[in-house]
Amino acid sequence: MAKRLVIALGGNALGKTPEEQLKLVSGTAATIVDLVEEGYDVVIGHGNGPQVGMVNLAFEFAAGNGGGTPAMPFPECGAMTQGYIGYHLQQAVQRELARRKLDKACATVVTQVVVDGKDEAFQHPTKPVGMFYNKEEADRIVAETGYTFVEDAGRGYRRVVPSPLPVKIVELPVVERLVEAGTVVITVGGGGIPVVENGAGDYAGVAAVIDKDRASARLALDLGADMLVILTAVEKVSINYRKPDQRDLDRLTAAEAYEYIKQGHFAPGSMLPKVESCLQFVEAGGTALITSLEKAREALQGRTGTLITNA
Amino acid sequence: MAKRLVIALGGNALGKTPEEQLKLVSGTAATIVDLVEEGYDVVIGHGNGPQVGMVNLAFEFAAGNGGGTPAMPFPECGAMTQGYIGYHLQQAVQRELARRKLDKACATVVTQVVVDGKDEAFQHPTKPVGMFYNKEEADRIVAETGYTFVEDAGRGYRRVVPSPLPVKIVELPVVERLVEAGTVVITVGGGGIPVVENGAGDYAGVAAVIDKDRASARLALDLGADMLVILTAVEKVSINYRKPDQRDLDRLTAAEAYEYIKQGHFAPGSMLPKVESCLQFVEAGGTALITSLEKAREALQGRTGTLITNA
Repeated sequence: MAKRLVIALGGNALGKTPEEQLKLVSGTAATIVDLVEEGYDVVIGHGNGPQVGMVNLAFEFAAGNGGGTPAMPFPECGAMTQGYIGYHLQQAVQRELARRKLDKACATVVTQVVVDGKDEAFQHPTKPVGMFYNKEEADRIVAETGYTFVEDAGRGYRRVVPSPLPVKIVELPVVERLVEAGTVVITVGGGGIPVVENGAGDYAGVAAVIDKDRASARLALDLGADMLVILTAVEKVSINYRKPDQRDLDRLTAAEAYEYIKQGHFAPGSMLPKVESCLQFVEAGGTALITSLEKAREALQGRTGTLITNA
Repeated sequence: MAKRLVIALGGNALGKTPEEQLKLVSGTAATIVDLVEEGYDVVIGHGNGPQVGMVNLAFEFAAGNGGGTPAMPFPECGAMTQGYIGYHLQQAVQRELARRKLDKACATVVTQVVVDGKDEAFQHPTKPVGMFYNKEEADRIVAETGYTFVEDAGRGYRRVVPSPLPVKIVELPVVERLVEAGTVVITVGGGGIPVVENGAGDYAGVAAVIDKDRASARLALDLGADMLVILTAVEKVSINYRKPDQRDLDRLTAAEAYEYIKQGHFAPGSMLPKVESCLQFVEAGGTALITSLEKAREALQGRTGTLITNA
């Protein structure tokens, strides 16, 4: 049986406008099909930060300025980005599979991910989405909408929504069937459309963003994947990141990771959730890899990246 | 083996705002699950006219009025509506399946449908989309983008896109696998994201709208479905529709249908493409049914609706 990989794609693998995204996904698809060519069954999770912000903003702006269209709730915006990103990504992967004469299908499954309505994240919204505003604009939007804004490291003000933990992937059985049939599946887009479960099988959307690395770890666990691969902007995980004594890590055990976390080496909202997602997966018996999109193939051949193992 | 139904859902099964849609899909889901309960394997196609208009309009308005978000090409808008409608619809079907303790999955597959770039529809765009503009604005946009605009009955100028015929469903093998596994599949949303095939497996989006009944007929043919069920606003197909001598039809043969078409009984853009879609399907050996959403179960039990057969 082919080894099963769950890949989590970062924002750098997509783009900020439809034109940019269409261009960027072609390089992303080349990497994905590299891994298919290496003999892996590949399942793709991806982020949607800039995209869901864009959709949300376009609808808010049009609804608030006489555009004549309704406001769009946040989970519905997320669902839209799954269609939008999935379409570009599956098209690019299909093209690359055909070019290399690999007889495989690629498709996007619109995917809901259950969160716990009592998750304490709902009390402390933290996840920045969408565009940056100056203080005056942000204050106006807060007054109009009740959204929560925070200042983001000198770059301006940005809306934040809660980021609860993924509990269950609703469409998992469907994803499983397609992976078994050899399909390259795109799922948990943007971390999944966040829903709460009000009773068995009775789901309802909530305004939240599920971290795409945590959702991909959940997916990897539930699919019994062999490896979780988190593709990001850096080739390796580092300690003392961007300091004179920065050290890039080839390997990282769970024990070391916990120690580095305690020492504050990994930035919250950036490397920390990636390492934590990997920890969750390796502690259940899997292996995880963090590397860049460009180096994915090399890293899977053991030549670069940071390999994370339980011991 | 269970009989396989392809259902084409009309706009009345969905809604114009997210709130309305969330409400309407619950009734739609009840009908769909009725048919699952009757023992059918159900595959769902649906329209997206109002929804893709809404997405297109929100982005067009925000981009043109300082909203700070990019313009969104038409196929990408269609992809967004597949995520948006599919999410609501699958959630409602999942809820209804769970309520009736039916152990089946339901999921949406983001679906591209190939059209022929040489389809003569591209020479005669007919489907109005997006905002109304005055003549000066429309002329400017035409000069900038090459879009086609038409004047719409005194309300201003509006972009029109072509409505070419569906040739091939790109994600058909994926849909087939899921149907075989007993999944209720939502696909060809809005008639599918329209693409042209530039080479084997090399697809690219085009600004067009594929008729959802024609796409559903294509799907029914390609899946070897037993029946194509077109759900619309009326319980039966009629001749002399809305005239004193209106006659509702219980059965309709292909020969009769051609005769009635020749006599102009079916309105273009309304009942005509539905009857033509059914003809395409029954001439290949299937059976088709046109009825209302509310009467679907009764109609499948042979108690109402218009049954269309080859002879």
